[in-house]
Amino acid sequence: MTQVIEQATSTAPQSTFTALRCKECGEEYSLGANHVCEDVCFGPLEVVYDYDEIRRRVSRDAIASGPNSIWRYKDFLPVNTDTPIDVGTGMTPLVPANRLARHLGLKRLYIKNDAVNMPTLSFKDRVVSVALTRARELGFSTVSCASTGNLANSTAAIAAHAGLDCCVFIPADLEAGKILGTLIYGPILMAVEGNYDQVNRLCSEVANTHGWGFVNINLRPYYSEGSKTLGFEVAEQLGWQLPDHIVAPLASGSLFGKIYKGFQEFTKVGLVADKAVRFSGAQAEGCSPIAQAFQESRDFISPVKPNTIAKSIAIGNPADGVYALDIARKTQGTIEAVTDAEIVEGMKLLAETEGIFTETAGGTTIAVLKKLVEAGKVDPDETTVAYITGNGLKTQEAVAGYIGEPLTIEAKLDSFERALDRARTLDRLEWQQILV
Amino acid sequence: MTQVIEQATSTAPQSTFTALRCKECGEEYSLGANHVCEDVCFGPLEVVYDYDEIRRRVSRDAIASGPNSIWRYKDFLPVNTDTPIDVGTGMTPLVPANRLARHLGLKRLYIKNDAVNMPTLSFKDRVVSVALTRARELGFSTVSCASTGNLANSTAAIAAHAGLDCCVFIPADLEAGKILGTLIYGPILMAVEGNYDQVNRLCSEVANTHGWGFVNINLRPYYSEGSKTLGFEVAEQLGWQLPDHIVAPLASGSLFGKIYKGFQEFTKVGLVADKAVRFSGAQAEGCSPIAQAFQESRDFISPVKPNTIAKSIAIGNPADGVYALDIARKTQGTIEAVTDAEIVEGMKLLAETEGIFTETAGGTTIAVLKKLVEAGKVDPDETTVAYITGNGLKTQEAVAGYIGEPLTIEAKLDSFERALDRARTLDRLEWQQILV
Ligand SMILES: [Zn+2]
Ligand SMILES: [Zn+2]
Repeated sequence: MTQVIEQATSTAPQSTFTALRCKECGEEYSLGANHVCEDVCFGPLEVVYDYDEIRRRVSRDAIASGPNSIWRYKDFLPVNTDTPIDVGTGMTPLVPANRLARHLGLKRLYIKNDAVNMPTLSFKDRVVSVALTRARELGFSTVSCASTGNLANSTAAIAAHAGLDCCVFIPADLEAGKILGTLIYGPILMAVEGNYDQVNRLCSEVANTHGWGFVNINLRPYYSEGSKTLGFEVAEQLGWQLPDHIVAPLASGSLFGKIYKGFQEFTKVGLVADKAVRFSGAQAEGCSPIAQAFQESRDFISPVKPNTIAKSIAIGNPADGVYALDIARKTQGTIEAVTDAEIVEGMKLLAETEGIFTETAGGTTIAVLKKLVEAGKVDPDETTVAYITGNGLKTQEAVAGYIGEPLTIEAKLDSFERALDRARTLDRLEWQQILV
Repeated sequence: MTQVIEQATSTAPQSTFTALRCKECGEEYSLGANHVCEDVCFGPLEVVYDYDEIRRRVSRDAIASGPNSIWRYKDFLPVNTDTPIDVGTGMTPLVPANRLARHLGLKRLYIKNDAVNMPTLSFKDRVVSVALTRARELGFSTVSCASTGNLANSTAAIAAHAGLDCCVFIPADLEAGKILGTLIYGPILMAVEGNYDQVNRLCSEVANTHGWGFVNINLRPYYSEGSKTLGFEVAEQLGWQLPDHIVAPLASGSLFGKIYKGFQEFTKVGLVADKAVRFSGAQAEGCSPIAQAFQESRDFISPVKPNTIAKSIAIGNPADGVYALDIARKTQGTIEAVTDAEIVEGMKLLAETEGIFTETAGGTTIAVLKKLVEAGKVDPDETTVAYITGNGLKTQEAVAGYIGEPLTIEAKLDSFERALDRARTLDRLEWQQILV
């Protein structure tokens, strides 16, 4: 490990990031594989930037002419190399969701669609691209993670592309698509009998005994910065301005905080005008420790044992939960939870109105958005952005029983016509006016 | 139907496309929902462009500053509207495949990665975006298709986004992910007991009796033009130059011909320098009518009955097969077929070296690329582009038995260490040097 720390402190002279700092007590640490304030308070560490240097470097034009990926924002990310691992991650579409907006009674609704993020179809590709680029700089040859599925997919895939060895840890009861979507890349895959929080604790132990780079443990300060790009991109895609209101899923709470930080950083260096953005968070009722704390006006999180189909956000003891609470409160947002049945309805609603097939986490976000609109907590005139963070092909089990079946027919015209008559009687919203 | 044809002929004055023309006899037709040379020879119709007008309009800079989607090439596409259906389709990464190249002994290999195309993770999103935009212009309110799966996903999704009614036809034995990945968008889904060629024949009958826009039947001349963007993008992403050699899968043969046409058009209007590009095609042995004709030096295709895991390219009677044959021959390319076992190995090889999880069609392309390299039919110094056209999450059945299993462990350090010892003994290429 000594070699790792030595390499870490020798950052290039022109670096825009200068140290790690404890989010709680302010203690500074070197830019190695540190993530906890070991000397003082055991708080989480965060990357410190030189915003004067960033301000000197960046401009709207320079960013717009950069790579078509998260690396157009490299000056805001904690890596030194000029050749980051770039497989096209980021710059996913900000889709004007006109049909969903009409359905909900909103005027300006956008979907930030990371269900089609590259390479593995979730926002995790952002954080992993940053973490593995930094891992390589720090001299790690083996990378690892504790994952609810999407992170396993992403770490295994991007490690394969970069030629890094990889061992990933998941709860044993994950969806088949997420297991297969990890194994295909050839990592060692450890299926742990337990929930995500138990997987995470085991990984913390392994991180202490093996010299591996765990993207969301010892590399977490670098890793988590990748989520800021979900803020940057929305601001750029809205024509260099911030939205009025965002709705995002809450798992550990990190994503939420980093979108917020992304907006703040763009404001600080003058890329966008200052604006109060409301932050609302979405959880599944079967794992809603942050929503419960919000509704009970607590400023601490009581851990829960997850029981929901929304496995990718089922973190019972969310590391950044208190920060998410704080952001929702100070921005006049809210945090809400929905049932598994509402989550499935949310997935279907987004697919049928916008043609976007999201996983359960995205269904959670859409169901919460709907609930907030119905409760009058979204102003119809607000420019609202809903963050869709993963793809529905990975959680097919969740909707398999709820979307009907194909109409099986013979390869003959009369068989088709009979089936079409049957379809007329089906209760499908879209087919009222079709049959002329 | 009369209304449809009337709207069709009233194209805007500044249109870059002027007519439909028979590919065989040259007879011209109006710009409606026509696809066959009904008056003369029953050949396929193609869109005719005014290349002088296109040349006046386009420049590298104008394209580069256009939308981050296929619509940056709108002047080359057969639609008039200024508001095409744009859900971010296209501009997928051209990945420098350095690890795969080293493995194969090549020097400049790229993967054009449509496994992450938007919104439904296959190149079909390109053709459907064009077809449905044109369908809307022509006044259709219901769209349809005959599909091997990917096209069903894409048509259902983009129709949902655009608010068009949708009925799609598939062979009943499709992969579960492709059926679910269609149903989720709420179309009418007809599962036909028969193979794709039977589905296609049924759809031709339905197209004659219902006033629907079938993207790959009566809208085919418009639809198929969308594939040209796979040529345009590669040329732009290579820095406005053409590659030396491309390898692409062959289903109907249309994709192959349109990539060729894309390169030709860019050359014709002066966006790239003229260059001889070799075109090589990939088929599965279980459905290889074009490869068989190529190897037997025939200039006609003998239809076959498909029997392969590569269902998305299993077209036994390929409509554009003879054109694909001609292109491969006149460019000094080749057409090769591989077994289902080789296809699975191709999928694994691409995933393990590049972190790209492709479906069986992509495995076919990689397996054929490997076979061509081993046969000395790819020059190591050539800039070679392999087209990956769909995502592996849709054909999980194909690899499920061939990629190992997770190592199940308890949430305890000693259980992990024992499993890691077991993993050392596994025959995984990547894990020889990992355990320090
Ligand atoms: Zn501290
Ligand atoms: Zn003709």
